[in-house]
Amino acid sequence: MRDQVLRLLRERREEYLSGAEVAARLGVSRTAVWKQIAALRQEGYAIDGSPRRGYRLVAEPDTLAPDRVQAGLATRVIGRVLEYHPRVTSTNEVAKARAREGAPEGLVVLAEEQTGGKGRLGRRWHSPPGQGIWMTVVLRPPLPPAEVPRLTLVAAVAVAGAIRQVAGLPVGIKWPNDIVCRDRKLCGILTEMEADMERVHFAAVGIGINVNQDPAAFPPELRETATSLRAELGAPVDRAALLRAVLAELEAGYDALLAGRFAAEVLPRWRECSVTLGRRVRVTPVVPGAEVLTGLAREVAEDGALILELPDGTLRRVVAGEVSLRPEE
Amino acid sequence: MRDQVLRLLRERREEYLSGAEVAARLGVSRTAVWKQIAALRQEGYAIDGSPRRGYRLVAEPDTLAPDRVQAGLATRVIGRVLEYHPRVTSTNEVAKARAREGAPEGLVVLAEEQTGGKGRLGRRWHSPPGQGIWMTVVLRPPLPPAEVPRLTLVAAVAVAGAIRQVAGLPVGIKWPNDIVCRDRKLCGILTEMEADMERVHFAAVGIGINVNQDPAAFPPELRETATSLRAELGAPVDRAALLRAVLAELEAGYDALLAGRFAAEVLPRWRECSVTLGRRVRVTPVVPGAEVLTGLAREVAEDGALILELPDGTLRRVVAGEVSLRPEE
Repeated sequence: MRDQVLRLLRERREEYLSGAEVAARLGVSRTAVWKQIAALRQEGYAIDGSPRRGYRLVAEPDTLAPDRVQAGLATRVIGRVLEYHPRVTSTNEVAKARAREGAPEGLVVLAEEQTGGKGRLGRRWHSPPGQGIWMTVVLRPPLPPAEVPRLTLVAAVAVAGAIRQVAGLPVGIKWPNDIVCRDRKLCGILTEMEADMERVHFAAVGIGINVNQDPAAFPPELRETATSLRAELGAPVDRAALLRAVLAELEAGYDALLAGRFAAEVLPRWRECSVTLGRRVRVTPVVPGAEVLTGLAREVAEDGALILELPDGTLRRVVAGEVSLRPEE
Repeated sequence: MRDQVLRLLRERREEYLSGAEVAARLGVSRTAVWKQIAALRQEGYAIDGSPRRGYRLVAEPDTLAPDRVQAGLATRVIGRVLEYHPRVTSTNEVAKARAREGAPEGLVVLAEEQTGGKGRLGRRWHSPPGQGIWMTVVLRPPLPPAEVPRLTLVAAVAVAGAIRQVAGLPVGIKWPNDIVCRDRKLCGILTEMEADMERVHFAAVGIGINVNQDPAAFPPELRETATSLRAELGAPVDRAALLRAVLAELEAGYDALLAGRFAAEVLPRWRECSVTLGRRVRVTPVVPGAEVLTGLAREVAEDGALILELPDGTLRRVVAGEVSLRPEE
């Protein structure tokens, strides 16, 4: 009944809805309606009420509960099944476990808080409660494992596009898939997979977006390198609306990838968003002991590799590494 | 005490060892020794015994129990930890579970029988009890996922080398990693991995070798396409000795791979063993709907791809597919 009351309130956002009308339409007592309103207020819904005029939904709580996210979600597959947690260790870990159990393509695991959020290169990802989008999407692309890095570029383009669209912020992509604003990180993407040599069994695309954090609340070691949408815009962002936009963009890019339009559609958008190409960068390798490279970031290859022009003019393919846009530091 | 008695018997294979001497060396009663001998006979050890001369080990049971496999194992890492099962669903599944729990590099999961053995392309792998080598090796190579197919070529070269050495049979490798004799399959390799886009978390290299099956006992659908070492040689093969040789060859190839000597050392051996290169083949793709290709198998690329020359003379890279060496059928 909670959901039905909420639906009626949402339908009639502009005007008041009398308790008597709600009771009549749902076939319950006015006391029962009143109890549901009280429960919704408890959940954080701001519902204006007066004995004369009735109830009006003024504001919804900023949660990522499935009913809020899925209302108005424009996807066919991604996010149609959504597993929501107030708190998890890591959405990637939960999503991988679900995928191993046979979860369908498009499952989204979502959490208000991660206690052991993971970033690239074995790092932690700071994921405080209620302020970000911490999620993992399970996909089952019919691709060999060598082509999965493209999926990460698809995800970066989707997040950059969604942020531009919902928050109007001109964010960029730092190779391979960090979303940045003024060289500070807004979003990280960690794609994990299980595969044999011929096909991917599943990919778990983890996306962490710093949405409404107060930058002063970042841990000291992140204050210089991370930021949030709220910090950049000076105003909070509706997380559910942003999440819906990310899922819709992700599905469009994923469809393009599977239809063989990656080079024609995704790569040009990645290049257009890139803050790496054309700049002098330093690349620290992932494999211990390998060489640190400095050079001009020339191009991104179709498989996602960065093509670096070394000082002697030779080109070098970089498959994995940490890029610094300030090579002199 | 069983292991100590067995060790003494193995040390003195050529002559008889009196019960009194065993009892004295182990500091136990002659009755206790006699009980251990009875237990070993129960396990399948053939121990000759006479009241006057004592005991002599005539034959060991053909099991892959760790003490038999590890006696004389010449590796540093691979197979130093060995998990042995009379029966499992699939050694790859057990090995992946162990790897996720943090199992060390080099763990070998070994079974006398698999009830749900897996082959490439989602197929089943027939794994009857006591007649084959059904095992999975856990490795943690510091490589990006796109380079893991090389590991499968390393494994194919290792198995082919071990079979040539222990059984003296001139086996070949069918791309990418089947070991064949007279175009019939002796061994299949299924490598699975978990990875992010930058590094492999672990690879589970599953190896199934048909050793001592009676070919008449193969399921009807395999009789035309599979064979065993025993069928080819007309005599059974010591599975533990073959397994030790596979592990030693695998470690040598893996060391070469990690030391950057793949192209210099492994690939030439793969080419030398290949029964695919230089032949007209038909390649059926893994991805549903993709094109079936017929052409001349020209070369294997450094990343393990097959380079096919199509009838019009153009070259095509094949990353995944099922090769038929009889394209006209």
